[in-house]
Amino acid sequence: MLIIGERINSTRSKIQEAIKTRNAPFILKEALAQIAGGAEFIDVNCAVTMTDEIQDIDWVISVIQSEIPNVSISIDSPNYLAIERALKVYNAGGSLFINSITAEDARIRQILPLAIEHKAKLVALTMDESGMPDTALERFEVARRIFDRVRREGFPAEDLYFDALIRPISTEPLQAREFLASLPLIKKLDGVKTVCGLSNVSYGLPNRSAVNATFVAMAAEAGLDAAILDPTDKLITTTISAARALLCKDGYCAEYIKAFREGRLVSIG
Amino acid sequence: MLIIGERINSTRSKIQEAIKTRNAPFILKEALAQIAGGAEFIDVNCAVTMTDEIQDIDWVISVIQSEIPNVSISIDSPNYLAIERALKVYNAGGSLFINSITAEDARIRQILPLAIEHKAKLVALTMDESGMPDTALERFEVARRIFDRVRREGFPAEDLYFDALIRPISTEPLQAREFLASLPLIKKLDGVKTVCGLSNVSYGLPNRSAVNATFVAMAAEAGLDAAILDPTDKLITTTISAARALLCKDGYCAEYIKAFREGRLVSIG
Repeated sequence: MLIIGERINSTRSKIQEAIKTRNAPFILKEALAQIAGGAEFIDVNCAVTMTDEIQDIDWVISVIQSEIPNVSISIDSPNYLAIERALKVYNAGGSLFINSITAEDARIRQILPLAIEHKAKLVALTMDESGMPDTALERFEVARRIFDRVRREGFPAEDLYFDALIRPISTEPLQAREFLASLPLIKKLDGVKTVCGLSNVSYGLPNRSAVNATFVAMAAEAGLDAAILDPTDKLITTTISAARALLCKDGYCAEYIKAFREGRLVSIG
Repeated sequence: MLIIGERINSTRSKIQEAIKTRNAPFILKEALAQIAGGAEFIDVNCAVTMTDEIQDIDWVISVIQSEIPNVSISIDSPNYLAIERALKVYNAGGSLFINSITAEDARIRQILPLAIEHKAKLVALTMDESGMPDTALERFEVARRIFDRVRREGFPAEDLYFDALIRPISTEPLQAREFLASLPLIKKLDGVKTVCGLSNVSYGLPNRSAVNATFVAMAAEAGLDAAILDPTDKLITTTISAARALLCKDGYCAEYIKAFREGRLVSIG
């Protein structure tokens, strides 16, 4: 499972503050800690701002790539102008995600050409003008519409990551099950991948890390390819490492054993 | 997921010693700790013995039920004479598992009538005279043969628990995946349930608890109904508690929150 580090997100007050005060060491520390935890992409979200998202995302990406050559970034914004600016300033040698489109025509028209031009992977949320679907089948139907549209415009299926939008089980107990059931359906769309923002699932519950870790194992089993999560949470990264071994994506468990030897696994029991 | 406590097993040297020396307090302590950890059944295995399995299983069950009224027992033996004796001595008001039959005719002929007579749930290992199958489909084929046979003889499908025999990923990396893939196949046999001996999966690996916990979450997602495991391992029981909430078997997460308040959950992250 591909790990996208979620921590540089302006909905977190410490990140919002660091962006506002242009605290480069803080942003860098967050990026490096996530890479140490196994993140292959660093998600950058500057959408919650007192000033200007476009200036902010430019600054954050500049800071990260100035110190981390080849860093891969997930550009996370509801604003295509911020995405456009991020794509201009990004010059590291890594890969890009654009996070995200929906089934809404305006977002696809604005963002899809940017993803094609920059050969970025693309997160597609399974929602449309009418909101978020409730059932697995409704999620699949929205995904199918997006798939048909972006394939017609030449976007490669293997770079398309559907996010079927997990919601908190504390208020909507059926939603985790519907999300999990949607994964094998969506993966019937030839060649596409799946992703999720993991931590939503445990919103409102105590001991969230254990719920998130359990859910990421279940989602891996159901076919999840990537997750936006906190790579500094050792219970979650331990679980992902074990899940890779269990799904035979870590031949003879070599990476799991290496992580153990390097002290990167949670040890209990 | 139904938890069957695995700790009173004569393959563990401390248990073998306690049985040999008739150390009743030790056996009782193991039973009570497992019930406190959430075990609904206590597995009792006395097959590894220097003396006499039949006398041993009689003694162990007598000790447990003398102090724990209504205890439910899983009688675990390759020897139908030991099973027969265990059924005679058991007089608590709980439920029984018999662990186990295979597709082998002799075992079915010996054990099935006992299970029917005592209204016990029955573990059926998906193996036959030729050994253990490798693939999910082969596991299903053995399960189907057992299903047809025991249904013909009047055993209720809902009391039949198929154990598709997980093997260590350290030496057979594909086996966890095949086991998981077998669960939805086997559950197509109308009304049956599934069970597994969890800890085999991590044999030979370091930090086994994390592998076991990750695997039990995956197996829950794939449809596992019961597991024979160590209920004193808090990472595993925390994961099972979270899995129940995520699969909507714990309305609005009430049991998960209660377990948190009572300090029964592992807290990390």
